[in-house]
Amino acid sequence: MPRTRFRAMDCPIARSLDRVGEWWSILILRDAFAGMTKFDEFETSLGIAPNMLTRRLQALVKEGLLARRRYSARPPRYEYLLTPTGRDFRPVLTALIGFGNRHYAPEGASVLYVDAATGAPADPVVVDRVSGRVVAEPEFQLVAGPAATASTRARLVARAARLLGQRA
Amino acid sequence: MPRTRFRAMDCPIARSLDRVGEWWSILILRDAFAGMTKFDEFETSLGIAPNMLTRRLQALVKEGLLARRRYSARPPRYEYLLTPTGRDFRPVLTALIGFGNRHYAPEGASVLYVDAATGAPADPVVVDRVSGRVVAEPEFQLVAGPAATASTRARLVARAARLLGQRA
Repeated sequence: MPRTRFRAMDCPIARSLDRVGEWWSILILRDAFAGMTKFDEFETSLGIAPNMLTRRLQALVKEGLLARRRYSARPPRYEYLLTPTGRDFRPVLTALIGFGNRHYAPEGASVLYVDAATGAPADPVVVDRVSGRVVAEPEFQLVAGPAATASTRARLVARAARLLGQRA
Repeated sequence: MPRTRFRAMDCPIARSLDRVGEWWSILILRDAFAGMTKFDEFETSLGIAPNMLTRRLQALVKEGLLARRRYSARPPRYEYLLTPTGRDFRPVLTALIGFGNRHYAPEGASVLYVDAATGAPADPVVVDRVSGRVVAEPEFQLVAGPAATASTRARLVARAARLLGQRA
């Protein structure tokens, strides 16, 4: 399937995946959150081929997740900084850290978030900012938004019917 | 880079990405959360080539995110159900829905979570279950866990130094 199909999908998950591009890009964003900004830093951290890293960085800049900034005129050198959109990807990474630690760290966590004030390990959950409740069915329902197409509306109706059937 | 490198990385994000495998797998999990269980349902929903779908389903079963269950003896037919590990992937999808709606839905959201009781749109954020505070630096710090290797510890020290330098 051509990648453009993902972008056209009327689904915020598919659209995000299309923008971020591939696993390398997520690991580049991870390293950017770790304060890395330079090509060499990403290359060393990831063990990625330089041509692949160039492509992924260009894609992240094009999609507005990173900004390219010249920090030296002679010789010209560039660094890559998280944009506000890129910074907003953090919750996805945090959710992945929680998932990875819960399921793929049988020997115990290698990295984890702790409360900077108390040192207590954080237990990351996705909640609604207003009500503070965990965003999951059946307390929350996925519904059509203002820009939903007719086919998306039909999908959501079929979705609700399937889930009701499974719960019954 | 061979995929096994991701798995060996001492990072919960890299390990999760390695298990989930690729974008198709995330969209299959999305559809499984939407109540789909049958090969034909996933195929129709995703417009994915059958051989690719077979491979992705097998990988998700092998990694313990989906379970394969026979629901008809003659002819033998199978369905794919989210395991507890698969269900626990939901926060990653919810974080992606929030991110996609905030940045890649200029015409407005097509799908969104609403509070089932009040109909109010949810604003998904990743918080610490105990303190209820958003998990982000500097309030929370990424630190070495009990299973961290020496190289991971060194990375985390370098990370903290970079971030401190940027904030100064």
